[in-house]
Amino acid sequence: MLIVQKFGGTSVGNLERIKNVANIVKSYREKGDDLVVVVSAMAGETNKLLEYAHYFTPVPPQREVDLLVSSGERITSALLSIALQSMGVPAIALTGRQAGIKTTSDFTKARIKEIESEKIKKHLNEGKVVIIAGFQGINENGEVTTLGRGGSDLTAVAIAGAIGADKCQIFTDVDGIYTTDPRIEPNARKIEVISYDEMLELASLGAKVMQSRSVELGKKLNIPIEVKSSFEPFKTGTLITKESKDMERIVVSGVAIDRDQARVSIFGVDDKPGISADIFGRLAANNINVDMIVQNVGHDGKANLTFTVPKNELELARVVLEDYNEKASEISFDPKIVKVSVVGIGMRSHSGVAAIAFKALADRGINILMITTSEIKISMVVDEDKGEEAVRALHQAYGLEKASA
Amino acid sequence: MLIVQKFGGTSVGNLERIKNVANIVKSYREKGDDLVVVVSAMAGETNKLLEYAHYFTPVPPQREVDLLVSSGERITSALLSIALQSMGVPAIALTGRQAGIKTTSDFTKARIKEIESEKIKKHLNEGKVVIIAGFQGINENGEVTTLGRGGSDLTAVAIAGAIGADKCQIFTDVDGIYTTDPRIEPNARKIEVISYDEMLELASLGAKVMQSRSVELGKKLNIPIEVKSSFEPFKTGTLITKESKDMERIVVSGVAIDRDQARVSIFGVDDKPGISADIFGRLAANNINVDMIVQNVGHDGKANLTFTVPKNELELARVVLEDYNEKASEISFDPKIVKVSVVGIGMRSHSGVAAIAFKALADRGINILMITTSEIKISMVVDEDKGEEAVRALHQAYGLEKASA
Repeated sequence: MLIVQKFGGTSVGNLERIKNVANIVKSYREKGDDLVVVVSAMAGETNKLLEYAHYFTPVPPQREVDLLVSSGERITSALLSIALQSMGVPAIALTGRQAGIKTTSDFTKARIKEIESEKIKKHLNEGKVVIIAGFQGINENGEVTTLGRGGSDLTAVAIAGAIGADKCQIFTDVDGIYTTDPRIEPNARKIEVISYDEMLELASLGAKVMQSRSVELGKKLNIPIEVKSSFEPFKTGTLITKESKDMERIVVSGVAIDRDQARVSIFGVDDKPGISADIFGRLAANNINVDMIVQNVGHDGKANLTFTVPKNELELARVVLEDYNEKASEISFDPKIVKVSVVGIGMRSHSGVAAIAFKALADRGINILMITTSEIKISMVVDEDKGEEAVRALHQAYGLEKASA
Repeated sequence: MLIVQKFGGTSVGNLERIKNVANIVKSYREKGDDLVVVVSAMAGETNKLLEYAHYFTPVPPQREVDLLVSSGERITSALLSIALQSMGVPAIALTGRQAGIKTTSDFTKARIKEIESEKIKKHLNEGKVVIIAGFQGINENGEVTTLGRGGSDLTAVAIAGAIGADKCQIFTDVDGIYTTDPRIEPNARKIEVISYDEMLELASLGAKVMQSRSVELGKKLNIPIEVKSSFEPFKTGTLITKESKDMERIVVSGVAIDRDQARVSIFGVDDKPGISADIFGRLAANNINVDMIVQNVGHDGKANLTFTVPKNELELARVVLEDYNEKASEISFDPKIVKVSVVGIGMRSHSGVAAIAFKALADRGINILMITTSEIKISMVVDEDKGEEAVRALHQAYGLEKASA
């Protein structure tokens, strides 16, 4: 198989860990796989370099920041190549530029435009393990760019697409994606297979592991992504792949909790066109991200509107919407909430999924403050101190502790 | 003036020192100079990266070593650019590749073949200070190469030549080249102007400051090189430049001491063709560098031959020449010697220069074991424990403590 493997900062955090990665790569190679390996900077290195930059100014020029921080991944790639070659494994380290990664010019958050993969393929054909410095590319002027958070995952998935790899393995410090956070629900079970869409909706379970943009790219390029642990490299992880009929038998894949939301409710505003546009227009103009929005049908010419914003943007929202203290009969702000979500593509073909959730929470006396649903997700806002209990109730209600049928 | 400035590892050894360099650059710019600044890696950084590489193998692959260690200069260049821009000075950092530095493919010791300086000139024309990561370039395949010891100096001198700079300033931790080592002779005086050839012959005085290859390149390109201190950046340093009539008035420019030589003497070998070729051929085959060679006219069909080799190669020389224990009447090895040299282009036009040296040593009862001369240098080997006294005697005999006439 042709596999792209990606090792994150913790997996290459020191020289011993890099040697461990070299051993993993060597084992896969000895099984007969052709390998491209994408590496992150050694844990802490990127932050160290950013601190250096901020010694001089709070807002360092982004072009130079990219030139600076891209060094971290170069260093790791060279070291891993040295480690592999010292074990007798033919290898070559390539920078983002050398790997043909062409990006936009948005320094510190560039997007990949194209990968000219001839060089990678040439080295693969010569029997080498090709090691690529993640997180970076060049723009059309040959300037070094970086891809922002999760950039090395993105590099790995994009390269897998460009060279037609059979899969992309993301090695990290956890052994997969779980049905929910095991610190909340000890019966949480590792998911074996999950669809791209479910993974995207379960962002809060996977965010520590994979950024949404990499999952989206995997979906677009149809690259199976396996999340697994660099501490147990031969144990099966979680495979994120395209939907199959088989998956639909499983109604719910996981339960996620998002503690970062705060609620804003505006009661008794005039129920006329333009009010929502005004409110959300102001929030957008101030770069406040709105997540859930619930608006009921108006009554007596008045409407009630509730939505959530990130906790650390709540105070800004309060300022932005100050004049609604007069325009509305009441406006309230509540940071003490959490959002609990149930995700599964089986919801599309199974009825009664939502009812199970509502009953599970009702049975425990947990009040649901807001509900929104999408095709494959039901999200509910509950009081902060009921969040973990809600997760456990839902996990149990859908029988997630059992291995899939 | 168009000036290329180079700051070494100690000068950019930490963030505070980099800020100091930014202040120096800013001051020159405010005087109206156009500036290209070449930087080394922060002191210790290159060695740290090399240690990383050697964690995996005693002989890491050189291509990857170059990719690895070239990161050090990239980091410094980005940081200096950030520091300058944060002070309101327009600046841009370029890697060796971006600066158009094309080299041979001899990884870890590449030679500069060509500098495509359009990009540097373009940024200069836009009013920017152009900061270049020293010590590195790319070969014809686009692989990163490094230039070996003294590589950043070489980068600076080569760029000065490519862009037609008025001079190249090497900022270091000493304020110039001295007539001799001030730790040996407290009356040593800073040399204001010296020719390239004298500087090359005074290698042992300047080696800590500048490698010979950079001086040779400066001579070839006719770039005046000023050695000065980054601690006293506006104090005049030592200018290394082409010979002028004026310089010839100064008979002797400096006295150098080389403690790294050991003596090998072979007495009573057959005085016939091929003996020298045999001896020096064997030494060369074992990569032993021979410095001074003295062979007297033969006598009674036997010849005596004395030469010096680096101290740490003496034992190897002993092994290589083992059979001369039988072929010669005597062979002796002596590590307890030093070479003392007197250098000055004025020697060409002044007679009696050597006699002054011999008398100065004789007056102190210092025995001269070997003598060799070149057009602008007289070198003498003396016992190790007489070396410093010999330096002081010569320094005084040529009146070097006085300012030049």
